Amino acid sequence: MALIKKPETGMKDILPEEMEIRDFVSRTARQTYASYGFEHIETPCVEHIENLSSSQGGENEKLIFKIMKRGEKLDLSAAKEENDLCDAGLRYDLTLPLARYYALHQAELLTPFKAFQMGSVFRAERPQKGRFRQFTQCDIDILGESGTMAEIELITATTELLSKIGFSGFTVRISDRRLLGAMADYSNIPAEKRDEAFIILDKMDKIGLEGVKEELGKNGFAEEAQERFLSLFTEKEQGIEGIRALAEKLGAAADPAREDLEHIIRMVSAVKKADFRILFDPTLVRGMSYYTGTIFEIEMDEFGSSVAGGGRYDGMIGRFTGSDVPACGFSIGFERIITILMDRKFQIPGRAGRKAILVEKGAGEDVLKKAMAKAEELRGNGDTALVCRMAKNKKFQKESLAGRGYGEFIEFYKEG
Amino acid sequence: MALIKKPETGMKDILPEEMEIRDFVSRTARQTYASYGFEHIETPCVEHIENLSSSQGGENEKLIFKIMKRGEKLDLSAAKEENDLCDAGLRYDLTLPLARYYALHQAELLTPFKAFQMGSVFRAERPQKGRFRQFTQCDIDILGESGTMAEIELITATTELLSKIGFSGFTVRISDRRLLGAMADYSNIPAEKRDEAFIILDKMDKIGLEGVKEELGKNGFAEEAQERFLSLFTEKEQGIEGIRALAEKLGAAADPAREDLEHIIRMVSAVKKADFRILFDPTLVRGMSYYTGTIFEIEMDEFGSSVAGGGRYDGMIGRFTGSDVPACGFSIGFERIITILMDRKFQIPGRAGRKAILVEKGAGEDVLKKAMAKAEELRGNGDTALVCRMAKNKKFQKESLAGRGYGEFIEFYKEG
Repeated sequence: MALIKKPETGMKDILPEEMEIRDFVSRTARQTYASYGFEHIETPCVEHIENLSSSQGGENEKLIFKIMKRGEKLDLSAAKEENDLCDAGLRYDLTLPLARYYALHQAELLTPFKAFQMGSVFRAERPQKGRFRQFTQCDIDILGESGTMAEIELITATTELLSKIGFSGFTVRISDRRLLGAMADYSNIPAEKRDEAFIILDKMDKIGLEGVKEELGKNGFAEEAQERFLSLFTEKEQGIEGIRALAEKLGAAADPAREDLEHIIRMVSAVKKADFRILFDPTLVRGMSYYTGTIFEIEMDEFGSSVAGGGRYDGMIGRFTGSDVPACGFSIGFERIITILMDRKFQIPGRAGRKAILVEKGAGEDVLKKAMAKAEELRGNGDTALVCRMAKNKKFQKESLAGRGYGEFIEFYKEG
Repeated sequence: MALIKKPETGMKDILPEEMEIRDFVSRTARQTYASYGFEHIETPCVEHIENLSSSQGGENEKLIFKIMKRGEKLDLSAAKEENDLCDAGLRYDLTLPLARYYALHQAELLTPFKAFQMGSVFRAERPQKGRFRQFTQCDIDILGESGTMAEIELITATTELLSKIGFSGFTVRISDRRLLGAMADYSNIPAEKRDEAFIILDKMDKIGLEGVKEELGKNGFAEEAQERFLSLFTEKEQGIEGIRALAEKLGAAADPAREDLEHIIRMVSAVKKADFRILFDPTLVRGMSYYTGTIFEIEMDEFGSSVAGGGRYDGMIGRFTGSDVPACGFSIGFERIITILMDRKFQIPGRAGRKAILVEKGAGEDVLKKAMAKAEELRGNGDTALVCRMAKNKKFQKESLAGRGYGEFIEFYKEG
């Protein structure tokens, strides 16, 4: 029987053109983050199902690829539900495995620990254009640093990376989860309706202030609560004055977050080398429930949604160890960035020259030796040297090679 | 409930020290293979269960991590056997996915296509020391080249890589699957006993000539067949004369393989730059059933088993397309190589200097700005510059940092 040629549903083969760009971004990320002292680590793609289903993953927990038990452990007749049949799953992000990793290896790692991770994650989402069920995440995290130095370093390193791969003029938006509680207090939103209010607020980008107002109304928020709540978000992009004005409205409860945000914005603005702005955005919510403090995103005009996101999640490692460890991370949207660079027909800086050595069929060992020695010489000069048999249709062969960047052809014939 | 700190059974977290070495080998492989015109590609970790179970994978098919169907497709009550519950699995090698990839994308790729792959594969083996259920494979393959140029390039590129990562004095052993049939003919081994004979021959490395003789006897091979068969393997390492002597015994059927092997050995010996020997080994079998022609391995004295292996598998792509495409590949034992380098306490050449900037707690923004500007300056010079808060126990902090390669400490105090 013939085998199946297409990749598994929702998954993707990567062609050489795209892979070159992926390698360039990976390499630049590795180098940039290493220069800040982030240490590269890896965790397995396969994770305990108990950890994956521990409600640290929010909506992603509905999208787990589950791995079947093996051998005698797999008992079909006794299985009452899905989870009786599986003991593991594919990770849906790199943050939960990092928390597990740090909980286990803390004694062998530096404090604070600056981690760099790049790897595949898996989500069984409905297949759709540009969204794949296996994709690469690229995260940096600082564990064991409770102060704002973590945020300043994460933002500086991430923006430097984006700058090195050709992006400029973007905006870092920052807020703090601690403000959200104070905002709900200010608006007299009852405790049981808060999460709902924040989920609606999170849609601001898509549906605007009017849309948020409408949804709040539909969902039975009191008129006065709506008005007070919405009055906090008249401007999306604000400087330090914006934070101060908001904090003044919210009262003393907002002060710790205000101080941190002011300090981060001042410091990042002072030390930044890349071309970007950092602004306070009171409408920022970010989906994951594990965030406990600062939250941030990077937006680029040419690409609707955010190209990087992160924040502080001081509670997660404690789920493994029993005692909390401060943690803060920033993740670039690797796949989105690759899509943008592909659309831009991005030229990789410093790419080696490509030279093809074509050897006529039937050429003897002496000719072949000369051809291979030539290739060796070119490689010694830093070029890419491809040796292959000369095709019958040499014109077509050269055109194909030119399409893959070969700019020079050296021919070796039977007669030497 | 506390979460599970250890990785999933048989899987491994990678600590920063090891990751540095892995990154060095990956980087060197990518660069070396790229300089030969191998193009980097990727396939998904998840593969159709039909493809994985198509008997291209030999023993590995018993070790598949199977992925459960999702949503309505998962019907526990109707499921009669394991495979009713799964629709995919994790790949156990990179060769089968490559054949699928080439079958699908051939029109978009160069001919011949030189592929470089590096990625995780998964096998549910019994957990044991040094063997993991997720591990990295690093393969090069040439598809669409039927001639020995493929073998010569694969061996030259792979040995160059090994040389660049610090190995020398190793041995490339080569043989040809086509000789095995002729050997069985010569020994009058009946058709139905051949696979068994080759499986026993494959153990030569472990049990020696005497052991092979004993096993043949136990398994009911005729005395005369045993003697004729064993007479072919008196020497494991042979030069071109060895091939000729064997081919003379085996008759005309052995000639195509003899010619190819002679040519490959002469050419590789002539063009090689790395320090190694290439020898004919008539006892070479290699496990996978998909090999159709040349087979080769690299052995290093300091490490018992082989550190690289490969061969020609001209039939596999035809399983997807209906028409065969010549194919030949060489895979380094990535994990074994990492283990050897770790044991050697390998020093990565050209590693950036590491400097740590320690900032006293309570230092104001002005001091922090100076510290960060200093870090930026160091990074500009190609150094790694880590900025962190000065710990209360500065001595311990510096010792920890020295343990991770930090050789210089720059201190910034509150007072500026």
